[in-house]
Amino acid sequence: MKMKNPKTGPKIVVVGAGAFGTALAAVAADKANVTLLARREEAAEECRRTGRNEAALPGIPLPAGLSYSSQAAALGDAHIVLFAMPSQAHRDAARRYGDAIGAKAIVVTCAKGMEQSTGRLLTDVLDEELPGRRIGVLSGPGFAADIAKGLPTAMVIAAPDRAIATELAEVLSGRTFRLYPSADRTGVQLGGALKNVLAIACGIVEGAGLGDSARAALISRGLAEMSRFIVARGGDADTVRGLSGLGDLVLTATSHQSRNLRFGITLGKSGRAEGSGELVEGAFAASVAARVAGELGIDMPITEAVAAIVDGKLDVRSALEQLMSRPITHE
Amino acid sequence: MKMKNPKTGPKIVVVGAGAFGTALAAVAADKANVTLLARREEAAEECRRTGRNEAALPGIPLPAGLSYSSQAAALGDAHIVLFAMPSQAHRDAARRYGDAIGAKAIVVTCAKGMEQSTGRLLTDVLDEELPGRRIGVLSGPGFAADIAKGLPTAMVIAAPDRAIATELAEVLSGRTFRLYPSADRTGVQLGGALKNVLAIACGIVEGAGLGDSARAALISRGLAEMSRFIVARGGDADTVRGLSGLGDLVLTATSHQSRNLRFGITLGKSGRAEGSGELVEGAFAASVAARVAGELGIDMPITEAVAAIVDGKLDVRSALEQLMSRPITHE
Repeated sequence: MKMKNPKTGPKIVVVGAGAFGTALAAVAADKANVTLLARREEAAEECRRTGRNEAALPGIPLPAGLSYSSQAAALGDAHIVLFAMPSQAHRDAARRYGDAIGAKAIVVTCAKGMEQSTGRLLTDVLDEELPGRRIGVLSGPGFAADIAKGLPTAMVIAAPDRAIATELAEVLSGRTFRLYPSADRTGVQLGGALKNVLAIACGIVEGAGLGDSARAALISRGLAEMSRFIVARGGDADTVRGLSGLGDLVLTATSHQSRNLRFGITLGKSGRAEGSGELVEGAFAASVAARVAGELGIDMPITEAVAAIVDGKLDVRSALEQLMSRPITHE
Repeated sequence: MKMKNPKTGPKIVVVGAGAFGTALAAVAADKANVTLLARREEAAEECRRTGRNEAALPGIPLPAGLSYSSQAAALGDAHIVLFAMPSQAHRDAARRYGDAIGAKAIVVTCAKGMEQSTGRLLTDVLDEELPGRRIGVLSGPGFAADIAKGLPTAMVIAAPDRAIATELAEVLSGRTFRLYPSADRTGVQLGGALKNVLAIACGIVEGAGLGDSARAALISRGLAEMSRFIVARGGDADTVRGLSGLGDLVLTATSHQSRNLRFGITLGKSGRAEGSGELVEGAFAASVAARVAGELGIDMPITEAVAAIVDGKLDVRSALEQLMSRPITHE
């Protein structure tokens, strides 16, 4: 039987035992009382028995003080609840666990996306489904494996006000995992959602063999496009240029650990959207962002091209042709 | 014997037959009358004979219309002169070729650095040494090999006024090599110089095995640092966020084609500055930028750390410790 965690810090529950949720639970367990809430009891039991989450983070030992559960009741006395499931699963999870989450809990979404059916931000989805709770967002350049291995990682946590964000940053940061507080929930989460779209575009360019210089130009254009959208939606341009915008864009668009990049590479190599398997966060975000950009009249040629490819309305060669042959005007 | 170039466009001379100069000459030769000026006649003759510059761009055939010379006289009727030698060689080259360059010529520096002994921008060096000529700068995310192979590349050309920059962009751009005009010579060239410093820092982080997430955080912090310096020196913050700042930073800091990144990786692996061979542009720029930042009171922790390492005043482990353990404050 596992020893009880002797620590007396705030109680944290991480909902979702995927790679990212497990990594966050592991670093937070350093100084807080943390439970990782899995959907299936078999998964929780496997973690409990082996001290690892082999399916999500192979080969990485988890801290002895971390608890595991599959019961909503585990949420009862949590001060902080981290939602670490895919974006499209947020509303269902909020409905499933909502009653078990205390009225004073702070609920933080750790996904990088938007709800496809409504185009809503995940903090808005949680605001709707968990009335009265304070809702935050954690985003920025941190791969689950890097975080869990204790490599230096810097991310951003945003909350309705800076005092809550600062408190969350202090509680959740570890020796090598550093969170920076922000009050710009919109900017932080849109950065996380849109960079996935641009990572797909970078993957397409890489897959088509267009070279590192072309990818760098695309990232530069992409950041400008991201900035236009985020500012139009009420986010802060400074947020776009920080860790959760530029930093995460660079990470996702240049590291092969990124699933969105790899999805794009497959598209760029095959020239077709078909057969590229499971949809990644960026594929959902592309269609939402392209739709909203159209409604608000925001110029987003890269996002529109990715959305059209993912929706099967444009082939990859035509999209590349279109993206790479814009007239010489002001940068 | 080689056919004379039948084209009647402006006459362009590229001074410096390294990889970048040769690549620029090759793309410009598509529509202009271009001569590549090598220092040694043997190098010019070799290019003439083989139609390649095997030492600089191995395996890449050069256009038949490109001319080669080692004679300053070739500069006599040039409308545009591109300086494509290392930063520290700019003043000598300007003195050597100055008399041969016509009074109406536009001289464009294509190096990414500052003069180490004086801390001056290269456009200032050329302004001093070539009085009366209009001086421009070409910079941004473009590897010589990508440009020469015809892969899509987007860079920036800045001149004392936008009309000249636009004219230069039109003349020098090719089908796949696109130049965007700018009037911000300071911002464009400081972006090119400072990103090399940050690339060394990213290389150190990579060499020390700290992971992609740490590198992304460093790039994000680095861009903020670059921006502070460039704005303090009179450059435009928008330039920093464009191709010649962010775009080139991303390219240099993430692609192993970059010599500055590789220099940093060697440092990060060995933990010492010694034995890392030939100094790269970023090593010179680090000490200049750190000195100027000190004088102007600009906070540049990453640049200062790189300068201290390169100067042998700080070991790599201490520098990493210092960079990765800043307190949690505002991003």
